[in-house]
Amino acid sequence: MSALEIIQTRRSIRTFLKSPISVEDAVKILDAGRLAPSGFNRQNLEFVYVNNPQVLRMIKNCAPGFYGDAAAAIVLGIKEQKDEYEKERRKAFHRGESNIGALDIGFAAENILLAAHALGLGGCAIASFNDIGVRKVINAPEDWKPLLIISLGYPDTFPRMPFKKKLSEIIHHNRYGNKWEVLKE
Amino acid sequence: MSALEIIQTRRSIRTFLKSPISVEDAVKILDAGRLAPSGFNRQNLEFVYVNNPQVLRMIKNCAPGFYGDAAAAIVLGIKEQKDEYEKERRKAFHRGESNIGALDIGFAAENILLAAHALGLGGCAIASFNDIGVRKVINAPEDWKPLLIISLGYPDTFPRMPFKKKLSEIIHHNRYGNKWEVLKE
Repeated sequence: MSALEIIQTRRSIRTFLKSPISVEDAVKILDAGRLAPSGFNRQNLEFVYVNNPQVLRMIKNCAPGFYGDAAAAIVLGIKEQKDEYEKERRKAFHRGESNIGALDIGFAAENILLAAHALGLGGCAIASFNDIGVRKVINAPEDWKPLLIISLGYPDTFPRMPFKKKLSEIIHHNRYGNKWEVLKE
Repeated sequence: MSALEIIQTRRSIRTFLKSPISVEDAVKILDAGRLAPSGFNRQNLEFVYVNNPQVLRMIKNCAPGFYGDAAAAIVLGIKEQKDEYEKERRKAFHRGESNIGALDIGFAAENILLAAHALGLGGCAIASFNDIGVRKVINAPEDWKPLLIISLGYPDTFPRMPFKKKLSEIIHHNRYGNKWEVLKE
């Protein structure tokens, strides 16, 4: 499948076969996350790849939205910036609210989900979890902040496309509120 | 190219040819953004596609990291949730810091960047901008928050891979701090 087809046919997978994930595929998927862009190319994301069944079960217990017996999970987190100048510079731009870390996690996560789908695997992004619990389970240090969990495995059932808004409902042309006449209603 | 190759060869493009973007390609790229996952599938992202030269110039003036004469730009923003119950539920999970909006923008942005690359176009994600200025230029309402700008056009020069950390530097196995022995140092 082409990249556009992979984007179009990706689904959130919440039921999995019992098959384990090969090391080769896991490395390809993690590498796709590594290759995502990051703000200022500062690359302060670090991932924990979990395929130990005990650790995986404990991660699941911290995340009520983690469905299915996934063969593995990736916990995506941000290593805090130590460079104070950089911190201040970003704060100044965003009036105190920097979203750059979460955006970087989003870029990497989508690469991971698409790479998984391209390899016949699948998973689901889970942003709701007890982060104190997750930190404890994987023994995370103070300066590393988990923001997202991705479940990973071979899809058992492949769900249909969920309800999605039409393009004409979410696109504005040049100014907010301007419809783009080329888009079907 | 396969989806994995598209992920591997995507670069942030900051110099562009003068060629305009066809409506067909623009729609495919925007649609890739639409098809990204979103937290709770609530789809509260809306994009402004800017190809009017005057509006584009004004957007550029608000974003010091916007390099090159891009043919177009996409401003990605979040429409605020009106559902108070949902808001409270998310706050409870994240102890007041919800990153779900920024994560959703990241998922959609990466789809957009990959779709652009797959079509021979390219662009760059720009998170640092004067959001009061951008809101004014595109006439954004109070309840819509721009979080990211993506420049878009045909690459003039295709940059080499920037410095990237090795996989072994960013991956932990099962517990934070555990090296994964399969990864090359």
